[in-house]
Amino acid sequence: MEHKIIFAIEGGDNVEITAQPGEKLLDVAKKANVAIDAPCGGNGSCGKCRVRLLEGELDSHMTRHITQEDYDAGWRLACEAKVTESDVTVLVPDIASAYRSRMKIADLSNTDEIEIFNSTKEQIFGAGLATGTRLTTVPVELTPPSLDDAMSDLERLSGALEEALGAAVVPTHFALSRLPKALREADFKVNCLVEERFGSKLLLDVWSQGTEHKVCGIAIDIGTTTVSAVLVELATGEILAKASSGNGQIRYGADVINRIIEATRPGGLEKLQKAVIAETIDPIIRNMCLAAKLPRENVCRLTIAGNTTMNHLFAGIDPESIRMEPYVPVFMEVTGLVARDVGLSVNPNAELVIAPNIGSYVGGDITAGALASMIWTAEDMTLFIDLGTNGELVFGNADFMMSCACSAGPAFEGGDISCGMRATDGAIEAVTIDKETLKPALTIVGGEGQKPIGLCGSGLIDAVAEMFRCGIINPLGKINVEHERVRTDEYGMKSYVVAFADESDTGREIALTEVDLDNFIRAKGAIFSAIKTMLEALEFPVEVIGKVIIAGGIGSGINIKNAIRIGMLPDIDRELYTYIGNSSLSGAYAMLISDEATEKVTQIGRNMTYMELSSHPGYMDEFVAACFVPHTNASLFPSAGED
Amino acid sequence: MEHKIIFAIEGGDNVEITAQPGEKLLDVAKKANVAIDAPCGGNGSCGKCRVRLLEGELDSHMTRHITQEDYDAGWRLACEAKVTESDVTVLVPDIASAYRSRMKIADLSNTDEIEIFNSTKEQIFGAGLATGTRLTTVPVELTPPSLDDAMSDLERLSGALEEALGAAVVPTHFALSRLPKALREADFKVNCLVEERFGSKLLLDVWSQGTEHKVCGIAIDIGTTTVSAVLVELATGEILAKASSGNGQIRYGADVINRIIEATRPGGLEKLQKAVIAETIDPIIRNMCLAAKLPRENVCRLTIAGNTTMNHLFAGIDPESIRMEPYVPVFMEVTGLVARDVGLSVNPNAELVIAPNIGSYVGGDITAGALASMIWTAEDMTLFIDLGTNGELVFGNADFMMSCACSAGPAFEGGDISCGMRATDGAIEAVTIDKETLKPALTIVGGEGQKPIGLCGSGLIDAVAEMFRCGIINPLGKINVEHERVRTDEYGMKSYVVAFADESDTGREIALTEVDLDNFIRAKGAIFSAIKTMLEALEFPVEVIGKVIIAGGIGSGINIKNAIRIGMLPDIDRELYTYIGNSSLSGAYAMLISDEATEKVTQIGRNMTYMELSSHPGYMDEFVAACFVPHTNASLFPSAGED
Repeated sequence: MEHKIIFAIEGGDNVEITAQPGEKLLDVAKKANVAIDAPCGGNGSCGKCRVRLLEGELDSHMTRHITQEDYDAGWRLACEAKVTESDVTVLVPDIASAYRSRMKIADLSNTDEIEIFNSTKEQIFGAGLATGTRLTTVPVELTPPSLDDAMSDLERLSGALEEALGAAVVPTHFALSRLPKALREADFKVNCLVEERFGSKLLLDVWSQGTEHKVCGIAIDIGTTTVSAVLVELATGEILAKASSGNGQIRYGADVINRIIEATRPGGLEKLQKAVIAETIDPIIRNMCLAAKLPRENVCRLTIAGNTTMNHLFAGIDPESIRMEPYVPVFMEVTGLVARDVGLSVNPNAELVIAPNIGSYVGGDITAGALASMIWTAEDMTLFIDLGTNGELVFGNADFMMSCACSAGPAFEGGDISCGMRATDGAIEAVTIDKETLKPALTIVGGEGQKPIGLCGSGLIDAVAEMFRCGIINPLGKINVEHERVRTDEYGMKSYVVAFADESDTGREIALTEVDLDNFIRAKGAIFSAIKTMLEALEFPVEVIGKVIIAGGIGSGINIKNAIRIGMLPDIDRELYTYIGNSSLSGAYAMLISDEATEKVTQIGRNMTYMELSSHPGYMDEFVAACFVPHTNASLFPSAGED
Repeated sequence: MEHKIIFAIEGGDNVEITAQPGEKLLDVAKKANVAIDAPCGGNGSCGKCRVRLLEGELDSHMTRHITQEDYDAGWRLACEAKVTESDVTVLVPDIASAYRSRMKIADLSNTDEIEIFNSTKEQIFGAGLATGTRLTTVPVELTPPSLDDAMSDLERLSGALEEALGAAVVPTHFALSRLPKALREADFKVNCLVEERFGSKLLLDVWSQGTEHKVCGIAIDIGTTTVSAVLVELATGEILAKASSGNGQIRYGADVINRIIEATRPGGLEKLQKAVIAETIDPIIRNMCLAAKLPRENVCRLTIAGNTTMNHLFAGIDPESIRMEPYVPVFMEVTGLVARDVGLSVNPNAELVIAPNIGSYVGGDITAGALASMIWTAEDMTLFIDLGTNGELVFGNADFMMSCACSAGPAFEGGDISCGMRATDGAIEAVTIDKETLKPALTIVGGEGQKPIGLCGSGLIDAVAEMFRCGIINPLGKINVEHERVRTDEYGMKSYVVAFADESDTGREIALTEVDLDNFIRAKGAIFSAIKTMLEALEFPVEVIGKVIIAGGIGSGINIKNAIRIGMLPDIDRELYTYIGNSSLSGAYAMLISDEATEKVTQIGRNMTYMELSSHPGYMDEFVAACFVPHTNASLFPSAGED
């Protein structure tokens, strides 16, 4: 028999659906389109999908994430609770739908981000690439029709345009539909937006010369976890708005593998495309256009940088072949797609300029990011690392580039860590621990008065490095001190309390458990072993590295000293490290305002070789060796023991 | 205060809406999307929008269409009834929504129609035009990927296609989305549908060589009253299905002027486009594809022939400038539009090949029809007449062509005639009257056992001609006999009963009133005066006409003798007349299977001159003179008096 399941969404509406006994609550939530954060994909490991039982019964039990106290208060993991023979009402805490509500329209006047952005721009165009695209605005003044001159609007315009441009122009339906009004608004004087595409000239838009009209574009970085975008006036390159939001696909799993699996279920591809387009990117575009007071139809070019899976899901293309041997994407480069192909509400014919993929797990975010990293002009051997949900590496210089990806997992973005979170308000982004008292000092995103909610990537690196420095953990990541901040649960698992319940914003303790530490150490180990394997495959020693460029949105940056201390990054001169923020978005921005930058990214994509790490002999050994703090071979990190 | 209005649709659901006192019931019905037949646009003249008051009060009165008896029974004209201070329930008779439900999927094995169609086809392609379009199916066999050959699907296919075609191919989003499955269905052996468009080669579709797949197209004639279409296999030209349906726009008025006025109201354009696309053409396509057992995505080319206003509304382009001085359409020729521009659910990139317009009131139905009429190869002076809601004429031969339109009004398709209807089941399509008894003999569409519902165009011509021959009406169209079939109402208006209430399918009398006769005589007068004015403008006598080609869907044909008798067509040798059925659809069919035919239609459009009749001096006098039976100058019709 079916039962009624009510999801009472904190700060939102109730959602009702029916379900069969035995159905997993998380699956029921998905069916009902209720967003519950489940970065681990629902396998019980992350502990994020907490819901609170208000009425009825669920078949569920205590887990390492749900203590007796939690359980008594009604807390359950949605992924480990099943419908039984009763109607049920559960509370879905706001924090679980945080990814959806926390869209951020950035204040352009302030932020280091914009500074990093501008300096990247200066470098790219300083290196000789010209700005400018195939879009041109052509003003035309027509003779108004009369009884003796009854030529149609389109013939009249086409004739004048052909004369001005020396070639016939193909009208888009959108431009044609705006033509009669535009012509009659200011006595048949109009501006025409024309784009050369595959050898023909396309009329994208037309507006009266009497109207103020900014021709715009949008650059989008589609991260597995976070989507960021900038709205740009194409003529000047000026950034008119900037926004970011959690990727709505989060509810279908934190990493690309879980997303691909979900996409191959019946109706899954449509669902995942809808989550990223209709629920994530379209609202971002709407809000940016509102902030900049522009109609969305003025957006007539979009550049997209995402990893191979994100690019496929954005375009609504079945990603299954990416994860099935022989691991072949459906596309690397694809040109000619337009906004309406994916259902974005901007100028329907706005071209989608997609940064090309290199392989199944190195995609457009890396080709666009490589442009921003300037590795393509480097004389020194350069290591470019993008720390996202996947870790991706590029090594090389102006002469060659090799790339690989390692599944670091979502730890750097807060997944797989019980108190982990993305670098939004309430995230602990930096930690120091007093060696004597073992008391932590925290820096929190959101500033003055903001209480902590969890740890983001940079905060995690700090916390683990400091716990190691202060002797709280041993090289295996096991907690080996007794202290008021160290707890042991009934299963014998220890944890270190970063913030007590009364210090946190949620009223729940923020603590790192040994499982968290284990997950984190595997993540950092994946990064380091990837670096080491790639260098060894190229037969280069670590000393050859002349520069390391770190990108990614793991916080306000990364404490390099700490990242070296825990054995995540090579122990070389810290002066060689630079942090360039969201390189994928910077690269997409450059592509937006410059066809030469787009051409360069295409070249980078074609020239970059791809190394499939998972099938590389020796990688697993390297990985296992790197799953210690700092490493089984401590001599690789001479400075790790320094204070 | 608002009141609840319930439309109880006969054979359908109840529709509820609220309305203010004073609102016209027909407007309320439009708001509620309730289809009430209103060919006159709601000005009280046609009497078609009869509804029956079941509960409540309406501010309404008797009219010449609503007798005392009708009124007592609750019958009201929706266009002349206003909401008062009460809730109201009205019955909407099925006949009023007939236009929507009477879709007809033709039986291809039987019908004169198909015969006419095939003979037109033989003539067109017999005259030297080649069949064949820019669409080609290219088979390619690819090497499946392996771990050592991890090229993406698209690169793999593009490479092979470029080799086969000698040029790069641009993938459409649709083809890309079908690519991974198509490749893996039969070991990377696929067929690709490629179309050359504006100099680049577009990949429209891809399917596994293991699948049966017919590449299809659809030719559509968009009449103001009726929409007809054929589904065709492009490779063979074979007609797989044929269908017709009332144009859903009917509810917004019977003629193009009323439609344009409606389209320029807020939201009107979207409403009218939806009525013809979503409510008329899309269901036609769906039903034809079902009948032919084909997926709709196989339709990858559409040809459209409609008058200038129909072409604009189909394309969703504001038609206002058509009816405002200086009467300039937004487009004559337009290329490059595709199915998804107008929201048709076929291959989204299927090209819309639209027969070009000539002027505001001579459109693609006439350029396509002119192709089918063979006037472009004629040596003799030829007169081509398309009898639709508008009457359109072309006069000329292989050397020149001149066209004009006259607003005959909807009489030939049943509008403006109280007992008029389209040529569907129940329509009286032929009438003879016994000169002694004045009793009519009727031929009814639908055959054996079908009782009459009303008169279609050919039946009207017959009825009027026979009433004139038998002396029932005088040359002014006034009834001047006394007989059991002649009635006089309380306003003194007379009518002739074609079928008594107990003989008809509706249980209501079928009668021609003097107002009907007046409307009809003005319609036939418009046609004849247009012919005469055009010939005189060209300084040709009637005798110069070597051939007359009649087209249009006014019934199973037209009794030429009767049409001459009433002074509608020139009194020349009846052997010179030919009836070619729906020439607009035949022309569109030829365009569908042949780029040369399309090119020919474009040339016809460019070469045909357009005469604006309404501003032509002398036309009004000719018109007034033609509003008699047969004509004020009876010597123009020497054979009219013959028995």
